[in-house]
Amino acid sequence: MVPPMHAPFDLASGCAVLARTPAVLDAWLRDLPDEWLTATEGPDTWSARDVLGHLIHGERTDWIPRARLILAPEGDRRFAPFDRTAQLRTTPPPLDEQLATFAALRRSSLEELRSWSLDASQLNLEGIHPAFGAVTLRQLLATWVAHDLGHLAQVARVMARRYREAVGPWRAYLSVMDR
Amino acid sequence: MVPPMHAPFDLASGCAVLARTPAVLDAWLRDLPDEWLTATEGPDTWSARDVLGHLIHGERTDWIPRARLILAPEGDRRFAPFDRTAQLRTTPPPLDEQLATFAALRRSSLEELRSWSLDASQLNLEGIHPAFGAVTLRQLLATWVAHDLGHLAQVARVMARRYREAVGPWRAYLSVMDR
Repeated sequence: MVPPMHAPFDLASGCAVLARTPAVLDAWLRDLPDEWLTATEGPDTWSARDVLGHLIHGERTDWIPRARLILAPEGDRRFAPFDRTAQLRTTPPPLDEQLATFAALRRSSLEELRSWSLDASQLNLEGIHPAFGAVTLRQLLATWVAHDLGHLAQVARVMARRYREAVGPWRAYLSVMDR
Repeated sequence: MVPPMHAPFDLASGCAVLARTPAVLDAWLRDLPDEWLTATEGPDTWSARDVLGHLIHGERTDWIPRARLILAPEGDRRFAPFDRTAQLRTTPPPLDEQLATFAALRRSSLEELRSWSLDASQLNLEGIHPAFGAVTLRQLLATWVAHDLGHLAQVARVMARRYREAVGPWRAYLSVMDR
């Protein structure tokens, strides 16, 4: 049994979260001093700008393309591997442009998703993940939601850690510094 | 030496983060389905609504009141203990009202902070924390920033965890589920 704090995926409820992510990042990052946008947690960790680039890349190559593949009437059900570090190999455009691009891509993704009017049987259709094997469309869409939220948590954590020393003894109360 | 990814507190830069938190939460939570707002991580953990109540309580009783005490020309430098669970003992007002209250209180807090035109010597003034003893105004203000960010990370995490089961095998890629 799923414990009470865990919930099954709900399409309308999940889309409400997905629809808000661009506005959350816009309110958070636009015109923020650059030191917050480029701060990382050390070598091989991501800044807020890197996270934004990763979300844009996912919009283009991961979520909706994989859903299309699952829903296609025939053809290969195997997902192309998702390149989780693609955004680190190109110079990102200015922040304003990144925010606008993400917002436009997400809007378009959700329009396409809603246009499918998915029912329960379609949500149970499967694709083949390169590492996990068979996964359902329902799991893919739940992961899209949780992935957004995980990266919002990451942005907050990366920024908070800039002040790990500056907070002095309060660090003992700030678990975000140690996760 | 502070490692490169850690930074000393900077008043203008820190205020830029503090000023955005109400808009971030507004973009995130307003009109969101109630199941996201009231979800917790289990008994004795907080929902997004609880976090918002806690931030409001901090605005009223913690950050600026403690800063005033540090800056007062004379008097007792001991902080009153901050009640970290005050928001759990009253029924919260409607979400719209909570968001508006937090935004108004934060605006007013930052106006007062800016009106002080703090210099480096003032930032080094001390108060007495009930658990830590002497802490500087600089540490208090850095903690305010990190505290906001820690709670934004918490909101993201609490929401993400609703889908801990729903994501199926992708849970292995979603570290937010296990922190």
